[in-house]
Amino acid sequence: MFLSFEGIDGCGKTTQLRRAEAFLSARGVEVVTTREPGGTQFAEDVRELLLHSPQKLESATELLLFGAARAQHVAQVIRPALSRGAWVLCDRFFDSSEAYQGAGLGLDAAFIRAMNAFAVAECVPHRTFLFDLAPEIGQQRRFGEKNDKIEARGLEFQAQVRDGFLQIARRETARFVVMDAARDVETVWSAVEIELRKLLEK
Amino acid sequence: MFLSFEGIDGCGKTTQLRRAEAFLSARGVEVVTTREPGGTQFAEDVRELLLHSPQKLESATELLLFGAARAQHVAQVIRPALSRGAWVLCDRFFDSSEAYQGAGLGLDAAFIRAMNAFAVAECVPHRTFLFDLAPEIGQQRRFGEKNDKIEARGLEFQAQVRDGFLQIARRETARFVVMDAARDVETVWSAVEIELRKLLEK
Repeated sequence: MFLSFEGIDGCGKTTQLRRAEAFLSARGVEVVTTREPGGTQFAEDVRELLLHSPQKLESATELLLFGAARAQHVAQVIRPALSRGAWVLCDRFFDSSEAYQGAGLGLDAAFIRAMNAFAVAECVPHRTFLFDLAPEIGQQRRFGEKNDKIEARGLEFQAQVRDGFLQIARRETARFVVMDAARDVETVWSAVEIELRKLLEK
Repeated sequence: MFLSFEGIDGCGKTTQLRRAEAFLSARGVEVVTTREPGGTQFAEDVRELLLHSPQKLESATELLLFGAARAQHVAQVIRPALSRGAWVLCDRFFDSSEAYQGAGLGLDAAFIRAMNAFAVAECVPHRTFLFDLAPEIGQQRRFGEKNDKIEARGLEFQAQVRDGFLQIARRETARFVVMDAARDVETVWSAVEIELRKLLEK
């Protein structure tokens, strides 16, 4: 099983991913947790470049770098883990490109989908948990945290990204589980846990 | 005018590009010479990663990294130079992706063309000089030079790349000028010079 955890900054997806990891591990499942961009040394280098570089990167450059990191991550981490029967929990995956660089930055969604298909070569999440949240609440939760270059793009950008995620969820209803992430951690976790139990029974 | 210089390793394109630069500069043309991957600090960093990294990069990663470097290079170097009326001479451009990662590595040519179109956003060379050469001759000429990771892929790979370039040239006859690069430098230069004189008269 390949599960991705998506949503805007501050939505709580990383907290829920850690809980899911503990829950599954306690039931004897081998779990590999990873994140995008990242997961390989190369992709972590790309992450550094994308999120902290002093250079101004073009939007198109940003998108293609995410794609390059993704291709490496899928081939060298995700696919091998799935092949040996592990569950992979990924903090952000290809939907983030469509939401952030598509809905957020206005890049061509059709090209983004073509790039994603090329980069992942049919390695698509079985379920995607979308932690939906108003950007204002995400910002409050992140109060005092240091922003990286993408987090620093402001509330209007985050609102577009949120809409982008919801659009994908409406298109891919079989894959997406949309959670109201404005609720407290325990309530959201209960909803995630129900889904995980269903997946374990498969 | 935007001119690209293409061909397999050892074909002599860089030598001819320098001659073209001198020829055009002597006629009062502002010339910007650049190369792919490269041309910006970011793209030179990517170049280093692509050509000299100890990490094994996936073919798809390699292609998307070239695309990322290209988008940055076009937006920050090539387009601004063309806008102020300079001529840009580029040592390799997007055809190299189709030849090396498409014909050479076997990646999907349709996706490569879509990626190129996305990365260059209509900034397409007015003329592309293809220095066509048998790989065996290219290898002899490069005897004793140190190979980067792509140059080290061997003669069969270079033969596929050569065919890839020739296929693009057959498709885009208005843009391509194909030179027989097996001839000596002076003879090849005479052919390039004739083309440059024609372009200067436009």
